[in-house]
Amino acid sequence: MRFSFDITDDLHFEEGKFLMIAGPCAVEDLDQIISTARYMKKLGIPVLRGGAFKPRTSPDSFQGLGQNGLELLRQAKEETGLAIVTELLDPSDLNELIAVSDIIQIGSRNSQNFPMLRKVGKTGKPVLFKRGFGNTIDEFLNAAKYITREGNNKVILVERGIRTFEPSTRFTLDISAVPVIQERIDLPVIVDPSHPAGIARYVAPLSRAAVAVGSDGLMIEVHPDPPRAKSDSQQQLDFNQFSALKEEVDSLLPVCGRRYV
Amino acid sequence: MRFSFDITDDLHFEEGKFLMIAGPCAVEDLDQIISTARYMKKLGIPVLRGGAFKPRTSPDSFQGLGQNGLELLRQAKEETGLAIVTELLDPSDLNELIAVSDIIQIGSRNSQNFPMLRKVGKTGKPVLFKRGFGNTIDEFLNAAKYITREGNNKVILVERGIRTFEPSTRFTLDISAVPVIQERIDLPVIVDPSHPAGIARYVAPLSRAAVAVGSDGLMIEVHPDPPRAKSDSQQQLDFNQFSALKEEVDSLLPVCGRRYV
Amino acid sequence: MRFSFDITDDLHFEEGKFLMIAGPCAVEDLDQIISTARYMKKLGIPVLRGGAFKPRTSPDSFQGLGQNGLELLRQAKEETGLAIVTELLDPSDLNELIAVSDIIQIGSRNSQNFPMLRKVGKTGKPVLFKRGFGNTIDEFLNAAKYITREGNNKVILVERGIRTFEPSTRFTLDISAVPVIQERIDLPVIVDPSHPAGIARYVAPLSRAAVAVGSDGLMIEVHPDPPRAKSDSQQQLDFNQFSALKEEVDSLLPVCGRRYV
Amino acid sequence: MRFSFDITDDLHFEEGKFLMIAGPCAVEDLDQIISTARYMKKLGIPVLRGGAFKPRTSPDSFQGLGQNGLELLRQAKEETGLAIVTELLDPSDLNELIAVSDIIQIGSRNSQNFPMLRKVGKTGKPVLFKRGFGNTIDEFLNAAKYITREGNNKVILVERGIRTFEPSTRFTLDISAVPVIQERIDLPVIVDPSHPAGIARYVAPLSRAAVAVGSDGLMIEVHPDPPRAKSDSQQQLDFNQFSALKEEVDSLLPVCGRRYV
Repeated sequence: MRFSFDITDDLHFEEGKFLMIAGPCAVEDLDQIISTARYMKKLGIPVLRGGAFKPRTSPDSFQGLGQNGLELLRQAKEETGLAIVTELLDPSDLNELIAVSDIIQIGSRNSQNFPMLRKVGKTGKPVLFKRGFGNTIDEFLNAAKYITREGNNKVILVERGIRTFEPSTRFTLDISAVPVIQERIDLPVIVDPSHPAGIARYVAPLSRAAVAVGSDGLMIEVHPDPPRAKSDSQQQLDFNQFSALKEEVDSLLPVCGRRYV
Repeated sequence: MRFSFDITDDLHFEEGKFLMIAGPCAVEDLDQIISTARYMKKLGIPVLRGGAFKPRTSPDSFQGLGQNGLELLRQAKEETGLAIVTELLDPSDLNELIAVSDIIQIGSRNSQNFPMLRKVGKTGKPVLFKRGFGNTIDEFLNAAKYITREGNNKVILVERGIRTFEPSTRFTLDISAVPVIQERIDLPVIVDPSHPAGIARYVAPLSRAAVAVGSDGLMIEVHPDPPRAKSDSQQQLDFNQFSALKEEVDSLLPVCGRRYV
Repeated sequence: MRFSFDITDDLHFEEGKFLMIAGPCAVEDLDQIISTARYMKKLGIPVLRGGAFKPRTSPDSFQGLGQNGLELLRQAKEETGLAIVTELLDPSDLNELIAVSDIIQIGSRNSQNFPMLRKVGKTGKPVLFKRGFGNTIDEFLNAAKYITREGNNKVILVERGIRTFEPSTRFTLDISAVPVIQERIDLPVIVDPSHPAGIARYVAPLSRAAVAVGSDGLMIEVHPDPPRAKSDSQQQLDFNQFSALKEEVDSLLPVCGRRYV
Repeated sequence: MRFSFDITDDLHFEEGKFLMIAGPCAVEDLDQIISTARYMKKLGIPVLRGGAFKPRTSPDSFQGLGQNGLELLRQAKEETGLAIVTELLDPSDLNELIAVSDIIQIGSRNSQNFPMLRKVGKTGKPVLFKRGFGNTIDEFLNAAKYITREGNNKVILVERGIRTFEPSTRFTLDISAVPVIQERIDLPVIVDPSHPAGIARYVAPLSRAAVAVGSDGLMIEVHPDPPRAKSDSQQQLDFNQFSALKEEVDSLLPVCGRRYV
């Protein structure tokens, strides 16, 4: 078996299972995160994503709610019982973050922030680790070793698109990375179709491709009202779009020999 | 309906149908091409591929059998009734090629050979047109217009991978290109998973991804004895591997709302 | 000595010499090409460029004057005595083209059009051979062998930028390609700064970089009135801009141990 | 004037001046760093580089001497009076690092580590900020704003190559980035030719190109005995190679209208 570990006491992840993670790009207010959490709960999605600390290209862009964002995630968790994943930007926020978040997300821009990888490794907490958009697969897997060397094998790798010359999509989803990674390392690899798509209507086809190629899961940006989102408004799905996508995944999974976590 | 046309009198291709094309990288000898053709016939694959004129990176590499390769394809067609697709490299070979080949293939290296595109457009014959590995989707679709402007709308576009920094695969399959192309132009788009994979064991997962993303077909390199192939020996499937892949496609197609041509 | 050959009876090119080629993207009318030729003559530029057959991304764009363009180049040559280089797009134009053009240009989009490379190799005429923007250096040098295998060693290689994710310039000039190519093959390599720049004001700094890196020459787009150019209007220099650039090259060459052809 | 600031009390940097930085990839022992510092001093190089904390792709590779490395740099500074630049990997090392280092280096892998950029901004110390190899110029300049927004305008930008499909060099030096950056932001931009080259013999031509394109300086890896270097052994210059390169820069600078800092 390629991998088998507990994400939380109630949530076990192992080879053959398919992990769905969904939620807004950023936590924006209580209504937004609670309504999303309830919808995810209703659909049976086990993990809620939502950024409190946002790594924005420009310092002029919305940077996330910070500690307040963590508090809102705590409330969503309390209400729904969903597991939470949120991104760590600054190692000095680590303790406060893991007081709320069941999974520590390391984003694409910190894919080679080796001291921070060591620190999250030391927590023993599950880590959602995104490939750097400028990194080769081998660099990605070497970086993952900075986490696992600390004795932490609860690492979920995420293919989220790489930089290429093609401008039609925000990044180019390297779909081949899924089978390549699965034969090189004994860790789960899931696909984030939202960031490579960059545009909501491409998220469903990329999600289907991810399921069929053999991905161990999906991580999708969903927002109650995408046009009003403070970040990534073009690529977030609304509830209806996500529900339709979920049905497509439902019908593909059995053919691909997998069951939901 | 995005597209609907006859490839041959017996072979109609339209939106909702899935076109399978398979065969060796290059025609090498009578035994090789006839045995492959028979196997394809047995599996119900309607189109046989095989290169007579090969665009090899180095002049020292096997360049294909040329006219003799066309004659071997003619015999394979006569025996099995399969439709034939083979690549045109030199416009001066056009008449001899279309005497045998039902579909004219334009390879990635000639994706912006505009005079040749016009010439194949004028024949009215179906054209299998591959994306240049250094071309954006918009360049690809503009190049296709050089064919369609001649009144020829029987153009099958092929996504076959682009150049990126990732060395684990020969090219990076731009899986997103399928939905992007389908919304920009009313022509079928199929996927060639063999060239981006570069390695046989990645061809099946990429094929599944192509089906799930909504591709209108697949084009796969198959050889009776890949280790002895005179070109692309690493990426060609043997008959058993192809048969297994075919079964995976069989089970995915209904879920994806498509039927074989 | 890495290379030494006659371009024309009056024009010898060898290692240590620096070859300047300049002229409009496309031949547009008699006035345009004659006035440019005269200006080049005055500045001592030995080779005039100008496209008669243009490989345009879209069939809706200006495609060049064709045979009429060749006739205008003939008149410019007759009047000024400059050597001419113009691009071959369709092998069936080869004889008419070499009746006028002293050097046959093979553009980036035909960098792996192997049958055409063999044909121009057979003419024995000097060939200006551009790197495909999606090709590695090794692919480029292998393609050049399709010319030299025909016994034609009068091949001038051109680095003209490659496809990358950086959108600030039209292509990314791979300046490192100059020393890499010079150590791998005994042929001259010059730089085209106009196409990677894409914008006129970057052409001078890239030209200086090319001289300093050790390029064997430069090929620059110059137009009497760039805003009115029918193609590449953003990147062509006017006469004053080109004259200023020429002075910069004049002062760099001696420091770099080279003299003009 | 694009920029003008003091790096140290004795070292002023402003537009028109050319800043040379050189030294080993990593500080390895006292002999190595002192002998290099003395040689730099002899050649008039004002800033010594040397890594104490190394961001290595694999956790199995040499990670630098850490605090001991800082101490060796302190001794080299005391002996020669050279200004020091060394890379910050972990924000918790910041105070100890700036006790020794006159300039804080932010490496390519931390180019979008925004919390750390803010922290180095707050110190008011000069920052040597490298472009991420997967980042566009606009992303790079936006990231620089995370430093300058803290009121720190002593930022030296470094072009050090980007990821492309070309494997002949370790990265592709984006030489065009120099003029593009200079017109977009009022900060100095220098070139690191060692990392894109990846191979020592390409460092000199790339350095010349950088001078000629208008770079405000160079940062070059130099080691007393490159084959024995614990990292980047292929690309470091020995003293003789660096001395020869320095002479080439000496002769190019006046032609390019610049003088050494």
